[in-house]
Amino acid sequence: MRKYAIIGVGHVGATIAYTLVCKGIADELILIDTNVGKARAEQLDLQDAQARLDSRTIIKINDYSELTDADILFITSGNIHALDHASGNRWAEFEYTRKIVQDIAPKVKATGFNGVVIDTMNPCDAITHYFQRATGLSRQQVFGTGTFLDTARMQKVVAEVFDCDPKNVTGYVYGEHGESQFSAWSTVQVNGIPITELAKTNDLDLDALEAEARHGGWAVHSGKGYTSFAIATCAVKLSEAVFANARLACPVSAYSDRFETYIGQPAIIGKDGVESVTTLALTNDEETKFQASANTIIEKFHAFDDVLAQQANQQQEKRA
Amino acid sequence: MRKYAIIGVGHVGATIAYTLVCKGIADELILIDTNVGKARAEQLDLQDAQARLDSRTIIKINDYSELTDADILFITSGNIHALDHASGNRWAEFEYTRKIVQDIAPKVKATGFNGVVIDTMNPCDAITHYFQRATGLSRQQVFGTGTFLDTARMQKVVAEVFDCDPKNVTGYVYGEHGESQFSAWSTVQVNGIPITELAKTNDLDLDALEAEARHGGWAVHSGKGYTSFAIATCAVKLSEAVFANARLACPVSAYSDRFETYIGQPAIIGKDGVESVTTLALTNDEETKFQASANTIIEKFHAFDDVLAQQANQQQEKRA
Amino acid sequence: MRKYAIIGVGHVGATIAYTLVCKGIADELILIDTNVGKARAEQLDLQDAQARLDSRTIIKINDYSELTDADILFITSGNIHALDHASGNRWAEFEYTRKIVQDIAPKVKATGFNGVVIDTMNPCDAITHYFQRATGLSRQQVFGTGTFLDTARMQKVVAEVFDCDPKNVTGYVYGEHGESQFSAWSTVQVNGIPITELAKTNDLDLDALEAEARHGGWAVHSGKGYTSFAIATCAVKLSEAVFANARLACPVSAYSDRFETYIGQPAIIGKDGVESVTTLALTNDEETKFQASANTIIEKFHAFDDVLAQQANQQQEKRA
Amino acid sequence: MRKYAIIGVGHVGATIAYTLVCKGIADELILIDTNVGKARAEQLDLQDAQARLDSRTIIKINDYSELTDADILFITSGNIHALDHASGNRWAEFEYTRKIVQDIAPKVKATGFNGVVIDTMNPCDAITHYFQRATGLSRQQVFGTGTFLDTARMQKVVAEVFDCDPKNVTGYVYGEHGESQFSAWSTVQVNGIPITELAKTNDLDLDALEAEARHGGWAVHSGKGYTSFAIATCAVKLSEAVFANARLACPVSAYSDRFETYIGQPAIIGKDGVESVTTLALTNDEETKFQASANTIIEKFHAFDDVLAQQANQQQEKRA
Repeated sequence: MRKYAIIGVGHVGATIAYTLVCKGIADELILIDTNVGKARAEQLDLQDAQARLDSRTIIKINDYSELTDADILFITSGNIHALDHASGNRWAEFEYTRKIVQDIAPKVKATGFNGVVIDTMNPCDAITHYFQRATGLSRQQVFGTGTFLDTARMQKVVAEVFDCDPKNVTGYVYGEHGESQFSAWSTVQVNGIPITELAKTNDLDLDALEAEARHGGWAVHSGKGYTSFAIATCAVKLSEAVFANARLACPVSAYSDRFETYIGQPAIIGKDGVESVTTLALTNDEETKFQASANTIIEKFHAFDDVLAQQANQQQEKRA
Repeated sequence: MRKYAIIGVGHVGATIAYTLVCKGIADELILIDTNVGKARAEQLDLQDAQARLDSRTIIKINDYSELTDADILFITSGNIHALDHASGNRWAEFEYTRKIVQDIAPKVKATGFNGVVIDTMNPCDAITHYFQRATGLSRQQVFGTGTFLDTARMQKVVAEVFDCDPKNVTGYVYGEHGESQFSAWSTVQVNGIPITELAKTNDLDLDALEAEARHGGWAVHSGKGYTSFAIATCAVKLSEAVFANARLACPVSAYSDRFETYIGQPAIIGKDGVESVTTLALTNDEETKFQASANTIIEKFHAFDDVLAQQANQQQEKRA
Repeated sequence: MRKYAIIGVGHVGATIAYTLVCKGIADELILIDTNVGKARAEQLDLQDAQARLDSRTIIKINDYSELTDADILFITSGNIHALDHASGNRWAEFEYTRKIVQDIAPKVKATGFNGVVIDTMNPCDAITHYFQRATGLSRQQVFGTGTFLDTARMQKVVAEVFDCDPKNVTGYVYGEHGESQFSAWSTVQVNGIPITELAKTNDLDLDALEAEARHGGWAVHSGKGYTSFAIATCAVKLSEAVFANARLACPVSAYSDRFETYIGQPAIIGKDGVESVTTLALTNDEETKFQASANTIIEKFHAFDDVLAQQANQQQEKRA
Repeated sequence: MRKYAIIGVGHVGATIAYTLVCKGIADELILIDTNVGKARAEQLDLQDAQARLDSRTIIKINDYSELTDADILFITSGNIHALDHASGNRWAEFEYTRKIVQDIAPKVKATGFNGVVIDTMNPCDAITHYFQRATGLSRQQVFGTGTFLDTARMQKVVAEVFDCDPKNVTGYVYGEHGESQFSAWSTVQVNGIPITELAKTNDLDLDALEAEARHGGWAVHSGKGYTSFAIATCAVKLSEAVFANARLACPVSAYSDRFETYIGQPAIIGKDGVESVTTLALTNDEETKFQASANTIIEKFHAFDDVLAQQANQQQEKRA
């Protein structure tokens, strides 16, 4: 039986839930949200659809104990209004989302949950790292959608230039699911042809394409106030790779021993979550960008740790 | 090729679009909305998902001329804020949605569109009627989701009592997609057993079940601010029956020669839209309710016609 | 994880396997056949398809130990050539299939398998009974496709008369998955209207329709030498109801306390297999047919038991 | 509406039909076979499945006039027994299949069919060529599955070595769908890493892998007497790319202006069939193999043309 849980049923969580139900992927689905009325409404709306679907999914809400034997847990909470719209900076959400993790991680841990966690919360790399550390789950078991979505956007942007299916475009976006990410063009092929070669003959501005891919999320956000369909599709696809032990190659936010942080990079996704990360021969320029992106994540993550340490000290002092 | 168009990409329209794309049902999809930024954002979000889906859908926006050879047109516009939340009365939207129809009907007509129209706009029966009249499309070609959703809710509510799959519950909700609807219990079976018999031995309060089904939409609405998943699932299922010429039995808002209005009733859905309506032997009490529900729709619809006539007169007077 | 096993990869077993793989239903699939080359070939053919499917299924062959933690086991072995083509009598296969059960039941038992068994082997009711008894699995856990397929054929035959979707036809075929089965017309509705009423106004020959449904399998068999698509579709649908704990109403070969045999009748299918059987109010004539069909199964089953007892005696005598 | 036709309902054609029906891909499906009983049996078996499927497909048989407005035509006829089992040489079927084309091509032409033809008949490249020439349909509209299946097999074989999902393996098998095909290793990547590099560090025998991929069909054939699942999956996937105008990169048997023959090579598949072929920078060794494979096809095809010319002469002489 495929048993799923989702913590946070905002736009992303609810769209993941709908995808799992309408495609008959989940046999059982647990929805958890601090807004009980919202969780109940999503449950009802999905249950109302059941008579019109060929498949069936049992849907329960707001019971952490159901996580004990769940296979996949999506964490999707967020506060879209906390985003810094002007700059498009996902770190602006961190103040908010880290508190959510502080709240939910111990609850997840207490259930004895031992499945795979897929994080879509932002800033994705930092939150994935913090959630993994806070729950004590292994670094294999916990990963983020990271640049899986950014890579899809890069594929789309490139495919439009060459008027072809985005699936014809292979290769990866690396780094932070945020501003310091980069398209590793040395890994990208279009219909089997290296894009670096095509760029010469077609007079392509790869920097402009990279920027378009990077800002794809903000284009969606500015028009509808959030993003939902593509991120949900990415998250569900990763979960299916886990269930089937597919060992599918996907760029995700996975822990890097080299950088000592979670960061977007190609990995192999299977029953244990991240089975391994794949090291490709990047160009020097790409390696520099990769390092810089890792530094960005680490720096902000540590700044956050310092705040935590300060808070802990202050609390100890108060008690004393 | 399956070519779909959707006018209105609010929650319902966007969820229909996502369903068509994520399940690979549509080959081509046209999104139309007066909010161009919203239409563009939904297009981008759906296109971003394409690299992660096995199927492909070509998605275009805001070009009415694409309707010329479209097979299915969903009209889904609305203004959720126009709803009378306190009373849960869908007629409160009529002031708003009739103006939308006045705007879009001539545009649709001008394209020479000759496919099937499925309406989810509220008040569903009246808007379906008005749109059909305004476009001059046949009464077969234009129908509303009507009580297809209400019936799904009745199936769910009953299934919960008997702890079974909603698909085990057969039978129909008749009448207005609104307060005057009713569950025709004489048509309802659970696992093949008439619910009227089960009600006796199980001491069931059928009136309470009917009320729960009728107010199912408001339960969802109060928790998430709108409904989307079940209505989108219903709308998509109807469209699939049209494409496959399935001649599937569904309760929809179809034109009634007897009542001279659109109203929720069992019909056969196929390539022409409503192939026929099905007349079941209802009880006297049910017939009375059916007539009363028809009267409700007609009365409000005519009140609207009077307003239109007045407006036309006033405009003529001004010109004179 | 959805883990499936299939014993017997002839036409039915292989088509079940293909359905599970091409629709992404199974995460893991074990194929077992005494013809190792056939099992290996089906595995390879399915694996060759994997690069062209969005989903992934891990496929293993001929390892009974994999059954230990399997959720669903289909038993589908048979010898199509053993069928008595002239008479269309599935009992002709019994001589052959009972030996298969004698071979596989102890092997299944030895693995500690504790999932749900769905039997498509013929004669379906007798083989299901014998397999359940031989493995010691509960009567809930073991059931046969029985009249689930015959009911689908009845739905099709009726739908053709009324030019509608077979899904508009509700109701059940009861009894033996064989010659003594019968369409319980008192349970059948077309578009919500009792067929017994429609029969009067449309001058329908229900006996002829029943015969056409009953002989549907032979029509297929005579043209292609076997049946595969419909039976596989039925078997897969039942398995999905188990995984989702759907509590779906389906006519299957389930154990009848009243008749003390497995026999085709409406049941509720959920996580435990047969959750319950549903007793409908049949007509006197239908009750008589039901009893007669049960007698047919019991009689032949006991004749087989006598043979078994004789064999056991002879073996004891030899040893003595 | 998606309207499909299949000429030849042997194992491949019937499996294509089942895939189109069970996944709800086809709205209408025409089955044509000289063995009327077989076509009728497949129709019945598929129709019997309809009551158990959420989708519906209208299925008709043996009416060429239905091709007039069909979108996709699969030609799948063959005589598996005509194969030279010992040598695994698909040319052994040519004597048989060219006669089938001589029979069906004029009939297809007469209907005014103007959709896309996907050929799975063997020898694939030659039959595709001959069918295209005989019908006068454009070289874009007519193509063969060619090395699309061989490439899937190469992906599988390579994926097994590296214990990963076959979809992680990119690149192409070129040339004849037959013995002279070759894996263009310079185009192949595993998880984004060139296989030629991996071969060095992992001491891989690429020739052995190539041979295993090339003989994959015979491994299946020797175990089950035919191949069906993977070839049907490939054929259906190509048809979906046509319907959606996906412009999907696929290796197929497409016409080569350079070689003046149909041959397996990367192409872009869209609404017109083959939108374009893709020229990759192959190694000198690969170019030599490509030329050699083309020569093999041309030589045998011309030998066949000579036979045809002779036959035509003989017939003329007889008449004279």
